[in-house]
Amino acid sequence: MKKINVGIIGFGNVGSGVVKILQERNSLLSQKVGLGIQVKRISDIDLLSKRNVRIDKNILTKDALDIINDPQIDIVAELIGGIHPAKEYILGALKKGKNIVTANKALLALHGKELFASASDCGKNIYFEASVGAGIPIIKSLKEGLVANRFSNIYGIVNGTSNFILSQMSNNNCSFNEALKEAKAKGFAEKDPTLDIEGIDSAHKLVILTYLCFGKLISLDDVYIEGVSRISLADINYAKELNLCVKLLAIAKKDGDSLGARVHPTLIPNEHMLASVDEVNNAIYVSSDLAGNLLFYGPGAGQLSAASAVVSDIVDLTNDIKAGLFRSTLNIIPDKSIKRLSKIDEIQSRYYIRLMALDKPGVLAKISGILSKFGISIASVTQKERRKTQSVPIVMIIHEAKEKNLREALQIIDRLDIIKEKSVAIRMEKA
Amino acid sequence: MKKINVGIIGFGNVGSGVVKILQERNSLLSQKVGLGIQVKRISDIDLLSKRNVRIDKNILTKDALDIINDPQIDIVAELIGGIHPAKEYILGALKKGKNIVTANKALLALHGKELFASASDCGKNIYFEASVGAGIPIIKSLKEGLVANRFSNIYGIVNGTSNFILSQMSNNNCSFNEALKEAKAKGFAEKDPTLDIEGIDSAHKLVILTYLCFGKLISLDDVYIEGVSRISLADINYAKELNLCVKLLAIAKKDGDSLGARVHPTLIPNEHMLASVDEVNNAIYVSSDLAGNLLFYGPGAGQLSAASAVVSDIVDLTNDIKAGLFRSTLNIIPDKSIKRLSKIDEIQSRYYIRLMALDKPGVLAKISGILSKFGISIASVTQKERRKTQSVPIVMIIHEAKEKNLREALQIIDRLDIIKEKSVAIRMEKA
Repeated sequence: MKKINVGIIGFGNVGSGVVKILQERNSLLSQKVGLGIQVKRISDIDLLSKRNVRIDKNILTKDALDIINDPQIDIVAELIGGIHPAKEYILGALKKGKNIVTANKALLALHGKELFASASDCGKNIYFEASVGAGIPIIKSLKEGLVANRFSNIYGIVNGTSNFILSQMSNNNCSFNEALKEAKAKGFAEKDPTLDIEGIDSAHKLVILTYLCFGKLISLDDVYIEGVSRISLADINYAKELNLCVKLLAIAKKDGDSLGARVHPTLIPNEHMLASVDEVNNAIYVSSDLAGNLLFYGPGAGQLSAASAVVSDIVDLTNDIKAGLFRSTLNIIPDKSIKRLSKIDEIQSRYYIRLMALDKPGVLAKISGILSKFGISIASVTQKERRKTQSVPIVMIIHEAKEKNLREALQIIDRLDIIKEKSVAIRMEKA
Repeated sequence: MKKINVGIIGFGNVGSGVVKILQERNSLLSQKVGLGIQVKRISDIDLLSKRNVRIDKNILTKDALDIINDPQIDIVAELIGGIHPAKEYILGALKKGKNIVTANKALLALHGKELFASASDCGKNIYFEASVGAGIPIIKSLKEGLVANRFSNIYGIVNGTSNFILSQMSNNNCSFNEALKEAKAKGFAEKDPTLDIEGIDSAHKLVILTYLCFGKLISLDDVYIEGVSRISLADINYAKELNLCVKLLAIAKKDGDSLGARVHPTLIPNEHMLASVDEVNNAIYVSSDLAGNLLFYGPGAGQLSAASAVVSDIVDLTNDIKAGLFRSTLNIIPDKSIKRLSKIDEIQSRYYIRLMALDKPGVLAKISGILSKFGISIASVTQKERRKTQSVPIVMIIHEAKEKNLREALQIIDRLDIIKEKSVAIRMEKA
């Protein structure tokens, strides 16, 4: 049986998972594709750490170039993450005629244009199922399963760390810092969790999803980003009383001829499918014009989960190589009805607002007066406590308003002497 | 540009949706696949009814053989449903060297073996994405996206009519008959709803899902089937008080070396993702060994939703034809650890039981005595009302027990003179 040779760059968590699966499921996979799939070479800067997988030591190398320059290797899996040297490795491997599998969402989000253009020039493919939602086959579903559809919006819970933290806060009534500590203890957050809790990882994934759904490879700078780090337990609990829950959503939305992309904590009704997505799970909810509203759910992280996706890409590439077929990146067609990208200032949204105000007569009149000057109307308002001398929380839901107007109104409100803390505003989505 | 010619057998709801999409998205699709896709011929016994799509009348025919015998047609989409003549058309088209797309779950469930064997003999493919979950790309996800995974169980809400009825009963506090009436009024139930409400349609789909997940094409006779028609509003409401909800689940479960397949109303916790699947939506929840627990959710019916799936199959086949690649049916590999199919009698499950008993001292002692003789222990018990002379409902949750034992115990209990109605037992799943 002819063999497809795979080179693995990065023998870490996901890399060793991929090797494990390709070994243990070798007969299953070769029966499915009608070709053998063999790990020919593995590179890593660290060859000493123990991995939970048995391999012939001779296939290990410290130098990724041993893989890139090996003429017998057909597919290169880049699993080191980060921008450099991952980018150079992929570009080098493409030039050497390899097809690429990568799980590197940051790299695709930042340098996707150059990488896909290079793949196209070289007549090769880059597959990236593991870059969003780990083992959830969301990339394939958008690219192939929903091939005839046009999309109007994406809502993604695509960062397991953030979702775990919000779940912990909500279920265990604990603070953000306590939840983060728990996430670290369980291995769900990195030592430096910035990329996750500040929404940047979600934004990387949103760039990829937006590319697949709308055919636009937007820049990370075009994504408005706000993470979970400033969400307070008080707001989670007040929202609960309103039958709402807070999720960090990566949102891309078409509105007329514009497309807006943003990541921020979002209040959604408890009945929404996304509200049930707990712990480190991920889910992607897309609205398509033919197949309707769809949700794809599963664990958003995990060695074997991500490796499952990488292996599915390797199998697809094996089928492609076998057939001389060139699909993937080139079949992403821009949605021509999108003429521009919208800014966060322009969005129309409902909002949850919490103000800390003195408990005095006339306070609400003052606040609602300012809001109404900006054309903003209140759907509901509740004063949460009564205290004579200190400020009390006032929770409002406001009807759909333009973000710019709301921000300006809140700036004025925050300067009132009856207001004792900076106001909190959380966007709401019905979807 | 070379063209792929498609013949459509069945110009009904789904068929006209497919034609519509292939027309309106023609340029998008041909850019994606690099080949034109053209509807060359459409057959239907009814050529007079108006369809919401414009076509050249010359491509219409009353005789499906005009499609099957047309040497220029590459792909035949069978969209008439039912067993005969759909089966003969597919077998005939395969023999004439066509690849097949079908949405016909009943036909695949009943005659899949013969059809797939014939496809294999002819070196052609049968694709069937629309047969389960309409536009949800579940077939592709199981076949390709999760290619390296082994599965331990499937839980599917795969019948929109039944799910609509249960949602109506639960949300609007109405009887089964009222809910069915509403389903008919909204076009969600057929005039004769038997296939849907008796669980048979779900069983058809379960046979297909079981084939994909476990590589076993089981017979419909091997599926235990119970529909929603005997679910009472009382039980839905008592279950609600226990934070449970009733869903018609199609379940396939591996237990050691056996596989059990069954369709029945099932109580699941309200926190489970499947509990949020409302109205006519479908969802398939699978447990895989690498990618974990995954859920695929979306509308389970609808003209364009099903047509979206049919078109994705046509695009995949176009890619296959272009590449001379033969995948699909042949790459389904049996899970060899499964040695036998288990019967419903053998399953271990928790149960919700409702008895209608006289409100007398000693009643509970009698009932629990009988249960305990069969090794069945009670987790909780509540008497729902107090009435001196009439029977009152007693609701019990019992710990995991063997179905056979429970049935025997209930037979004895039902014969007691203190019991006034046949007992109700609903299986529970934690999932």
